[in-house]
Amino acid sequence: MPKENSSLHFDEMFCNGNVGSLFRVNKLIYSKQSKIQRIDIFETTDLGKVFALDGVIMLNERWEFTYHEMITHVPMFSHSNPKNVLVIGGGDGGTVREVLKHPSVEKVDLVEIDPEVIDACKKYLPSTASKLSDPRVSVYNEDGKGFVMRKHSEYDVIIVDSTDPYKGAGKSLFTEEFYTACRNALKENGVFSAEAENPVYDGKEMERCFNEMKKAFPMVKPYTAFVPMYPSGFWVFAYASKNVDPTFKGDESRIKKLASSLFYYNFKIHESSFVIPTFLGKLLE
Amino acid sequence: MPKENSSLHFDEMFCNGNVGSLFRVNKLIYSKQSKIQRIDIFETTDLGKVFALDGVIMLNERWEFTYHEMITHVPMFSHSNPKNVLVIGGGDGGTVREVLKHPSVEKVDLVEIDPEVIDACKKYLPSTASKLSDPRVSVYNEDGKGFVMRKHSEYDVIIVDSTDPYKGAGKSLFTEEFYTACRNALKENGVFSAEAENPVYDGKEMERCFNEMKKAFPMVKPYTAFVPMYPSGFWVFAYASKNVDPTFKGDESRIKKLASSLFYYNFKIHESSFVIPTFLGKLLE
Repeated sequence: MPKENSSLHFDEMFCNGNVGSLFRVNKLIYSKQSKIQRIDIFETTDLGKVFALDGVIMLNERWEFTYHEMITHVPMFSHSNPKNVLVIGGGDGGTVREVLKHPSVEKVDLVEIDPEVIDACKKYLPSTASKLSDPRVSVYNEDGKGFVMRKHSEYDVIIVDSTDPYKGAGKSLFTEEFYTACRNALKENGVFSAEAENPVYDGKEMERCFNEMKKAFPMVKPYTAFVPMYPSGFWVFAYASKNVDPTFKGDESRIKKLASSLFYYNFKIHESSFVIPTFLGKLLE
Repeated sequence: MPKENSSLHFDEMFCNGNVGSLFRVNKLIYSKQSKIQRIDIFETTDLGKVFALDGVIMLNERWEFTYHEMITHVPMFSHSNPKNVLVIGGGDGGTVREVLKHPSVEKVDLVEIDPEVIDACKKYLPSTASKLSDPRVSVYNEDGKGFVMRKHSEYDVIIVDSTDPYKGAGKSLFTEEFYTACRNALKENGVFSAEAENPVYDGKEMERCFNEMKKAFPMVKPYTAFVPMYPSGFWVFAYASKNVDPTFKGDESRIKKLASSLFYYNFKIHESSFVIPTFLGKLLE
């Protein structure tokens, strides 16, 4: 560990290495090269523990709620009665934790390709991962695309909580083939959400992903949330379905029942998150 | 300048130095200690020129539109016919540029304490500063608080485009005394906006500012925008007035007339920017 007048830092560079975020590290908790990727978990002063894959931050404990609530509750409340849910990626368990807040849920399949992510998160990040041991949850350590291609009309909600589309494990999850498999794995009134990067440093990749998605789903809509733990803080999600419009007008009472466990999402946020800045609308139209 | 395999970086640290942003600098354009603060302007690859005061980034050319449109058009469109406008701070000229897009505007007073900021921005940042030479604009190089305390029932809109509240030039602009002077300087149906920091790294300071503002104005409402050039990207603004509710229902046609010159703000964004995440509502309620 460094001396008193120096410090250990973790930097995440993006935008071709031209811009980055810098975090003072109090303690390195876990650092391992799994068969698939490098896994790092470190302790910070203000953000709690930080979890990174291949040098890209997946979450910090202090602010992960913004991302996990918004990737989860927008599709979950858009569906009138979600029972069977599939989460692809998301081995940290944050999305599953949010899914399980819905009392209608009977079954959650989590497909996380890397078993060492599950192990590390269960051990060091119980605030997100402890719900992975819930009896309603089944964890599958395999490629998400292969898994979903075997499923037909089975899920009410599919959530793609993946790494970035550029490389590695997440790459196959941003293709027309994958999105078509997701559509087929959904029931007729099923709904879908996916993380879709930020328009500040990844605008072109985002545009490509939405174009792929539109080939698979008749209804695709971007929505946004403040996710301060990711580059630029300006996060875009994709909502998709065969026929379920997400901009509902009702069921405020169902949301209010979960209110005490929600810190970002609320009834008005649901609808307003689909209102996007002009430049983003033009990029994705 | 650095060799090919090294680079010059600018870092902005926040959160007590525990978190920061890092930018590769292609070229240092301007760096000077004025009587008030250090002024830096440097060139980057993807963000255009970056302008910083005392090491805190004020803008980058690529993304300044999000901040300048939202601090300006929310109050400007909340007022039915803004003619006389006061901008406090904002020596880069971005806010004045947005104000002047409104054809009703007859007169803009800009109070920027540091004349060297004006000079540097006019020379190196014409994309924001060129409108400071518009005949409707008067620039006053003095303390914003002293200026506004001499004014009574004069302005339709007051916009406080200041530096941070912690120290230096911006400090006096986050007090009850200053906000009361702004209220008195507004006409009866006048409206007010101010930058109000981010809740991720400055939650306590933000809470204090809103509490001061509520002592001066009967109506104070937070609204938000993605401002990727600032820490966390999650920016909060304060709207205040004696009696004008900002969540209008009409005048979409007035907004549409400016549509071709707006890249972030639109009719729906106006209203949705006042919908805030649950935790922020609790912090500021």
